[in-house]
Amino acid sequence: MTDQSTPKATVSGLLPRQSAPENASPATGVSRRRLLGTAGAAGIVLGAAGAAAGYAAAPAGAAPLTSLGSNRVMFHGKHQPGITDALQACGHLVAFDLAAGAGRREAAALLRRWSATAERLMAGEPATHDDTAVARDAGPSSLTITFGFGNSFFDRTNLQKQRPAALDPLPDFSSDHLDKARSNGDLWVQIGADDALVAFHALRAIQKDAGGAARVRWQMNGFNRSPGATAHPMTARNLMGQIDGTRNPKPADADFDQRLFVPANGEPAWMAYGSYAVVRRIRMLLDDWEKLSLTQQENVIGRRKSDGAPLSGGTETTAMDLEKTGKDGSYVVPINAHARITRPDQNGGAAMLRRPFSYHDGLGADGTPDAGLLFICWQADPLRGFVPVQRKLDRGDALSEYIRHEASGLFAVPGGAAKGEYVGQRLLEG
Amino acid sequence: MTDQSTPKATVSGLLPRQSAPENASPATGVSRRRLLGTAGAAGIVLGAAGAAAGYAAAPAGAAPLTSLGSNRVMFHGKHQPGITDALQACGHLVAFDLAAGAGRREAAALLRRWSATAERLMAGEPATHDDTAVARDAGPSSLTITFGFGNSFFDRTNLQKQRPAALDPLPDFSSDHLDKARSNGDLWVQIGADDALVAFHALRAIQKDAGGAARVRWQMNGFNRSPGATAHPMTARNLMGQIDGTRNPKPADADFDQRLFVPANGEPAWMAYGSYAVVRRIRMLLDDWEKLSLTQQENVIGRRKSDGAPLSGGTETTAMDLEKTGKDGSYVVPINAHARITRPDQNGGAAMLRRPFSYHDGLGADGTPDAGLLFICWQADPLRGFVPVQRKLDRGDALSEYIRHEASGLFAVPGGAAKGEYVGQRLLEG
Repeated sequence: MTDQSTPKATVSGLLPRQSAPENASPATGVSRRRLLGTAGAAGIVLGAAGAAAGYAAAPAGAAPLTSLGSNRVMFHGKHQPGITDALQACGHLVAFDLAAGAGRREAAALLRRWSATAERLMAGEPATHDDTAVARDAGPSSLTITFGFGNSFFDRTNLQKQRPAALDPLPDFSSDHLDKARSNGDLWVQIGADDALVAFHALRAIQKDAGGAARVRWQMNGFNRSPGATAHPMTARNLMGQIDGTRNPKPADADFDQRLFVPANGEPAWMAYGSYAVVRRIRMLLDDWEKLSLTQQENVIGRRKSDGAPLSGGTETTAMDLEKTGKDGSYVVPINAHARITRPDQNGGAAMLRRPFSYHDGLGADGTPDAGLLFICWQADPLRGFVPVQRKLDRGDALSEYIRHEASGLFAVPGGAAKGEYVGQRLLEG
Repeated sequence: MTDQSTPKATVSGLLPRQSAPENASPATGVSRRRLLGTAGAAGIVLGAAGAAAGYAAAPAGAAPLTSLGSNRVMFHGKHQPGITDALQACGHLVAFDLAAGAGRREAAALLRRWSATAERLMAGEPATHDDTAVARDAGPSSLTITFGFGNSFFDRTNLQKQRPAALDPLPDFSSDHLDKARSNGDLWVQIGADDALVAFHALRAIQKDAGGAARVRWQMNGFNRSPGATAHPMTARNLMGQIDGTRNPKPADADFDQRLFVPANGEPAWMAYGSYAVVRRIRMLLDDWEKLSLTQQENVIGRRKSDGAPLSGGTETTAMDLEKTGKDGSYVVPINAHARITRPDQNGGAAMLRRPFSYHDGLGADGTPDAGLLFICWQADPLRGFVPVQRKLDRGDALSEYIRHEASGLFAVPGGAAKGEYVGQRLLEG
């Protein structure tokens, strides 16, 4: 967590792919996730020495994998993968409900199967049974698989006493247009990879593992910029063309872990080193947005579109001057600008790490693009992270005219599994 | 077209990204499309000297682009881009119908706008007006934009006399389950890029250019393996896990151009150096397919799943031994195996170049994955390419139980535009 040489990591709060810190975890005795396939500053290397084992390496005469394929994130660790790891190019979110008759025992067996599959696939190995071969020939491609529990899981498994208070349903927001069928769920799985077939392969393997124990409740696909498409040291752009995630907490912040992760002695005990994920499918009304002039768009956001700098001046990382006024005496950063309302110093600090995917499912029934952001934010406590910011946005964000929250989920994501352990074991066998 | 040093090119029939042949075109006087950002055998290079100009290079202090971003395909050339270029990681297909009241003049103006946009975006530059900035910071990322005309276009523009006979509607096939609303269309645009935001940005720019002249009829999203996810010299895999496109015609074949492209003196004259695209949305019934054993799957296809070799032995490129029998006297390659039926030597030669994208739109209404292949094949004459093969498949392909053709299109894709010309100008101003 000390590599500050890469601007991208500094800005986005996510580990760059080439970072390979290895911190021993006092809690689990296993090493923290690390990324193999070390690379130069631009994040690309030929024939990475760290090329993962598994079936990618099997065919005779195959050339060495390039780093995109050979990058590997470790499954075991203090925290689950897919939280502080670099954004991947492709993602799937899938929620499951336990099947009728399935309870704690079936859930434990499922999490055991899922953990075994995640470990194998993240190492570039085929799934144990009936692998579909869709990912064959490819490396792990930074695959991460992350598991979480929704509020309803604890009723279904008769584990109400273990349900975290932090899983209390999110408050209603006036801007919500939520589709319940695509919200929440007993179980949630986040899959990310830099290769679309690797990600799809993992999704199918996870679905197959569910067997008769759980059925898919909803499933969404997302994407981010491909590694190497830009070497520009800025944060990701979203489908509105805006730079997104500028004010994420930084790994170098003294309170980074504290904001993101439940402490070792936190409540409930099984959530030690875990985190809470708020998932919002935020549709962007792009036909309306793109009718605005550049100046209008920048006034809605409060930042320059080109480089993400505040309208009050500087660069992407310059602090916003909230009091600066223009010739006409009005604030340069308008009073209802999105970035003014969401600025961390007015919301108890940057208490959440945003790690989203964009989505685009073609044309919606109304003929406008069904596209936007699979907003995913991570925090030790949603009541200090997502909720207060969203409450403020709900009361006067200029951006609200151009977006619509169409689905919502809140999930408890336990700490990472130690070797020999499965994710959630401390809950399910606690 | 002479670079045979890269096995992938040999196998797939597509130009590798690092290939940079430059053939003067006698017809247009402009150089053939070529790929900048030359790279080593693994297709990756740092700080490519060929990094494209345009806004990717603009921000002060930006590091050089890696080759994924800097790879550039030329817009001008003998043929349109997106036909023999390497498969890209992301694709959009979009069909338009001319608006009520729009005719030949409006179509000509639209193709002029589209060509100008395609040229700029493929060079990594922003669109002329109101660029959304979604692709800002990224390089061209092998972006290609390809334009075609459907049968109905010629009625709408009163150009019936220019309609190619090859655009006669495809025959009905008994296995068709076609959705007419997602089939055909007056105009067709194929977008491919190695970065999802670059591809999305191009899609929005093309839609914006349509203005009041045309409205979107249907739109589909697809993907392929990311560059660098594998260095294995095999052809792409599809979502069934099968290697796909093994028997594509090869650039080294003496009749490669003849099979793919309308000759200089072909009919109609405006289609010189053009090609015909057959587009089929082929849903894969993956829940059924994945219940088959590996042996059952291999017997359906007639090839080994692991490496694509014929069941009669050898490697992916070994010719299939159709007469070989097993101990029980039955053919080793079953009589209804997909690869036996589609083998080029029984179908007038490999008369079409398959250049597909996979697709995955989440769960369908029936709860099974809405996933499969955006099959796109290119040929000088659909009646010698797609049609005879599909007729044979229609009569007894073992694979037909596991796939469903859900949409279909046939488009005339004119030759590439010379400098100062727009795509289709020879038709619209002929």
